[in-house]
Amino acid sequence: MSPKEKEIVAYHESGHALVAMLLPDTDPVSKISIIPRGIAALGYTQQLPTEDRYLMTRDELLDRLQVLLAGRVSEEVIFGDISTGAQNDLQRASDIARSMVMEYGMSARLGLLTYTRQPQSRYLDLGLGSGEREYSERTAQEIDEEKSRIIDEAHQKVLLKLKDYRSFLEKLARILLEKESIEGDDLKQFAEEVRIRAAAAGEQAPAESSL
Amino acid sequence: MSPKEKEIVAYHESGHALVAMLLPDTDPVSKISIIPRGIAALGYTQQLPTEDRYLMTRDELLDRLQVLLAGRVSEEVIFGDISTGAQNDLQRASDIARSMVMEYGMSARLGLLTYTRQPQSRYLDLGLGSGEREYSERTAQEIDEEKSRIIDEAHQKVLLKLKDYRSFLEKLARILLEKESIEGDDLKQFAEEVRIRAAAAGEQAPAESSL
Amino acid sequence: MSPKEKEIVAYHESGHALVAMLLPDTDPVSKISIIPRGIAALGYTQQLPTEDRYLMTRDELLDRLQVLLAGRVSEEVIFGDISTGAQNDLQRASDIARSMVMEYGMSARLGLLTYTRQPQSRYLDLGLGSGEREYSERTAQEIDEEKSRIIDEAHQKVLLKLKDYRSFLEKLARILLEKESIEGDDLKQFAEEVRIRAAAAGEQAPAESSL
Amino acid sequence: MSPKEKEIVAYHESGHALVAMLLPDTDPVSKISIIPRGIAALGYTQQLPTEDRYLMTRDELLDRLQVLLAGRVSEEVIFGDISTGAQNDLQRASDIARSMVMEYGMSARLGLLTYTRQPQSRYLDLGLGSGEREYSERTAQEIDEEKSRIIDEAHQKVLLKLKDYRSFLEKLARILLEKESIEGDDLKQFAEEVRIRAAAAGEQAPAESSL
Amino acid sequence: MSPKEKEIVAYHESGHALVAMLLPDTDPVSKISIIPRGIAALGYTQQLPTEDRYLMTRDELLDRLQVLLAGRVSEEVIFGDISTGAQNDLQRASDIARSMVMEYGMSARLGLLTYTRQPQSRYLDLGLGSGEREYSERTAQEIDEEKSRIIDEAHQKVLLKLKDYRSFLEKLARILLEKESIEGDDLKQFAEEVRIRAAAAGEQAPAESSL
Amino acid sequence: MSPKEKEIVAYHESGHALVAMLLPDTDPVSKISIIPRGIAALGYTQQLPTEDRYLMTRDELLDRLQVLLAGRVSEEVIFGDISTGAQNDLQRASDIARSMVMEYGMSARLGLLTYTRQPQSRYLDLGLGSGEREYSERTAQEIDEEKSRIIDEAHQKVLLKLKDYRSFLEKLARILLEKESIEGDDLKQFAEEVRIRAAAAGEQAPAESSL
Repeated sequence: MSPKEKEIVAYHESGHALVAMLLPDTDPVSKISIIPRGIAALGYTQQLPTEDRYLMTRDELLDRLQVLLAGRVSEEVIFGDISTGAQNDLQRASDIARSMVMEYGMSARLGLLTYTRQPQSRYLDLGLGSGEREYSERTAQEIDEEKSRIIDEAHQKVLLKLKDYRSFLEKLARILLEKESIEGDDLKQFAEEVRIRAAAAGEQAPAESSL
Repeated sequence: MSPKEKEIVAYHESGHALVAMLLPDTDPVSKISIIPRGIAALGYTQQLPTEDRYLMTRDELLDRLQVLLAGRVSEEVIFGDISTGAQNDLQRASDIARSMVMEYGMSARLGLLTYTRQPQSRYLDLGLGSGEREYSERTAQEIDEEKSRIIDEAHQKVLLKLKDYRSFLEKLARILLEKESIEGDDLKQFAEEVRIRAAAAGEQAPAESSL
Repeated sequence: MSPKEKEIVAYHESGHALVAMLLPDTDPVSKISIIPRGIAALGYTQQLPTEDRYLMTRDELLDRLQVLLAGRVSEEVIFGDISTGAQNDLQRASDIARSMVMEYGMSARLGLLTYTRQPQSRYLDLGLGSGEREYSERTAQEIDEEKSRIIDEAHQKVLLKLKDYRSFLEKLARILLEKESIEGDDLKQFAEEVRIRAAAAGEQAPAESSL
Repeated sequence: MSPKEKEIVAYHESGHALVAMLLPDTDPVSKISIIPRGIAALGYTQQLPTEDRYLMTRDELLDRLQVLLAGRVSEEVIFGDISTGAQNDLQRASDIARSMVMEYGMSARLGLLTYTRQPQSRYLDLGLGSGEREYSERTAQEIDEEKSRIIDEAHQKVLLKLKDYRSFLEKLARILLEKESIEGDDLKQFAEEVRIRAAAAGEQAPAESSL
Repeated sequence: MSPKEKEIVAYHESGHALVAMLLPDTDPVSKISIIPRGIAALGYTQQLPTEDRYLMTRDELLDRLQVLLAGRVSEEVIFGDISTGAQNDLQRASDIARSMVMEYGMSARLGLLTYTRQPQSRYLDLGLGSGEREYSERTAQEIDEEKSRIIDEAHQKVLLKLKDYRSFLEKLARILLEKESIEGDDLKQFAEEVRIRAAAAGEQAPAESSL
Repeated sequence: MSPKEKEIVAYHESGHALVAMLLPDTDPVSKISIIPRGIAALGYTQQLPTEDRYLMTRDELLDRLQVLLAGRVSEEVIFGDISTGAQNDLQRASDIARSMVMEYGMSARLGLLTYTRQPQSRYLDLGLGSGEREYSERTAQEIDEEKSRIIDEAHQKVLLKLKDYRSFLEKLARILLEKESIEGDDLKQFAEEVRIRAAAAGEQAPAESSL
């Protein structure tokens, strides 16, 4: 990995971590690393869930979207250029937006209808008929617009956060470039600094997940 | 399961049960539980059919839709946030709306035409040709609009009921959070209280299924 | 089967039978029964063909449509609610309307073109290419409109007949609910009464099939 | 087969035969029969090609269309009702119209482009990609309109011919109903009468195929 | 083959050959024959490439289109009727037009984008997803319009050429009908006459391929 | 290969190489050859990456597009005619544009949504449902427009560069036609001349990749 690539990865992971710290309902960040683990993972940000989860609320899904997009947005804020490294994050974010609109009834505009087939019936059908979406083009357009709206709103929120907290972003990236990974007390202390600044600004401070 | 999740489940199941009690043509509620049975069922509301059923009328299907949606709507009313826990309910409600419009000729707008293929011919065809819907985009749009209308009307009715009977909803959820399940005389007594309030309000009271 | 379901079935079958009696070109009704034969057949109306048939004319197909829809329409007239019991009738009626428009050249608007693939070529193709309809969306829309028109016109005709002959419908249903089935002289006598009333009204009386 | 069905078949086959006699470029009619040969062929009109054919011109294809449609149109002219017996004729006529427009470049509007896939490439592809038509909806609409125009024009021409020559149609059908089949000198004499009438009217008389 | 068919074939092949002679960048015609070689080839025009070819330019492809269409256009010019014999030529011409627009980036309107899938990825995918074109209906329409424009322009050019050189067309067809095939010096002499006439008219004369 | 084809290939490869030299963020050109290596590669331009790459930025992808298109554009500039030899380049350029818009979230208009399926889910699904794009026609149109815009902008930039540096293009092609391949010091010296001219013109000079 070139120094330039390492720098991109450092800011990418710092973006994920910082936005996670700024969202109280996401799992706490336990480790950040830019030591590559194979070609598919040039770095990672680990969020340890505080408990097993069986349900996700809409607000939690929206927070998760922000964390997923934050890697890409950090590149955008810092370099004014963006890389292919966000592909997997964007795919996962798109899948969440898709499920919110098509499976979980979380778009007021589409209402409580679902637009996917029941998995069990797919097997019974041997795939017959599943090659064709059943809903109309107009509904497909509304689904697209809702998915776009959800992703765009999350994008805007993350952009504001990272511009606001740019100094923290740069500090975290510098630590990563120097030490390659951060966890434990070092990470907790950094998160505490973010929390203090957020509290001072009257913003949502990171807290124990209250759900 | 976290306390927050348990609370969501309690209100979700209470929603199903309360709306079933308020609809005279649905099967009586025999048990409500928030003791998880595997990951797919964090809780359940049991309606014991009073007799074997061979036919369902349109009114009965519309009632069943209300009961299915009531779990989600209860979350909406109580928490102002909604969870992924309603996914299966919404899928089943969508399937009913789909069948009413496309198979049972129960939408005046689409008339007595069916829009599905005969199962038997599908097997003869070995799936040839079943990859393509035969009806036009305009018909697909009308089908979408009719399914939406059916689900939206049921949504509105359930919303009104649960806001009206919010105190009962909260009482039932509290019982569930305390005891984890309710059945037998306790449940009958609660249903009787609902019935008295409904009768006083001149509304449809739960009754023996008259069909 | 509940008493309510039995009543629905009795009126459903009486609808089929009465409309068949009022259409001179359909096969004569030889037996009506509401004794269930498995879950798929809660009742049946038997029309014995007077001879083997190799051709059907458009008028005969339109009469057959009326007989098929009459079960559902009878529920509509008597109960103001409709049941899932008509699903198979509606599927068969839709298939006839579809064939009239797409295979038999019986819609003046679509003309003498057929819109289905030759079965033999499907097997040669191993299904390649049969996943896609070849005609345009506008043609698909015209096909939908013609199918709807055919079914809706049959629906209206049956509705008028059953409202006009409601007393016969009720009488036949009462006999069925009492005796569970009717055939032979009892049925012939009932059909004769229908014929006399129809003749008096200057309407088409049931007659030997003249085709 | 009922007498009514036999009458329909007689007029159907007489229609085919008479129009073939009135079109000089079609193969001469060698036998007409209404003796059923299995369920799929209630009657037939045999045209013996005077020579092996390797090419068909547009005019010959248009004549063949008229002969194919003439069975159905004869039912329309004589009975004012039409039967399912024309299904195979209509399918074959539609296939010819389809090939003229999509494979043979015989529609000026669609020009010399073909709209079908090369058979050989289909096998190479193992059917991949053949599930989707490649041309646009607008082209699909133009193809539909051209096919309709070709079939409708043939329909109108046959209708005029059969109304004009109704007495010949009735005479031929009467012979068939009496003798069940006609060939040899009897058929030649009938064809000669048609030819004389057509010559007198200054119309195209049946002649040796000049192609 | 009937005399009429033989005449059609003679003019068809003469059309191919004459247009090839009038286009300097196509391979020289080495033999023309109307001796049938099986049902699929009633005649043929042989163009021997002067060298192995690895690249084709747009102008060469457009010339090849003219040669392919010239058989059909010759029938049109001479008989005012057209035959099914051009089917394979039209298919090949359509495939070239399709490739120019969709694979070779040779339509300014569609630009340098390609609209086909990479063959290698198709095998990796096991055909998954290849049942659906990825581009929009509007793009499909532009592709259709570009293919039509390319074919129509070639059609017009050939029509002008064959009307202009009709006497040569008739002479070549007469030779073919008499001798059944022409090659060697006889063919060279005929081509030379065409060249002289074209040179006199200031038109492009056949020349050694300069590419 | 004919002399004409060799000339086309020489200009094609010179186009690739010259544009690569004019773009500082692309890998340096290490060898150019017009010695054919099988039918699929009539020539090649080798760019040796200076290091292993794990990420590509948007700017790097846009540069790569210019290099890919430069072969075709060189033919356009020099000959005014274009060949089939660019097919593979155009396919690869289209794939990059497609990925930028649909997978990498690099089109502001389409936003951070992805429009492809997750590979892993495709295998789980056994291809069920992957035969149908899930997004709407309007989105498909926006994707097409964005891909076109990206390719067209790259096309215009390359056209300007090659017209500006036409003398270098001609010089490089002449060297290739003479020596068939160029590498090492000869190539470095040529690239240095390009760099000097570009620096004089105040344009981007080739430099060590700064990423």
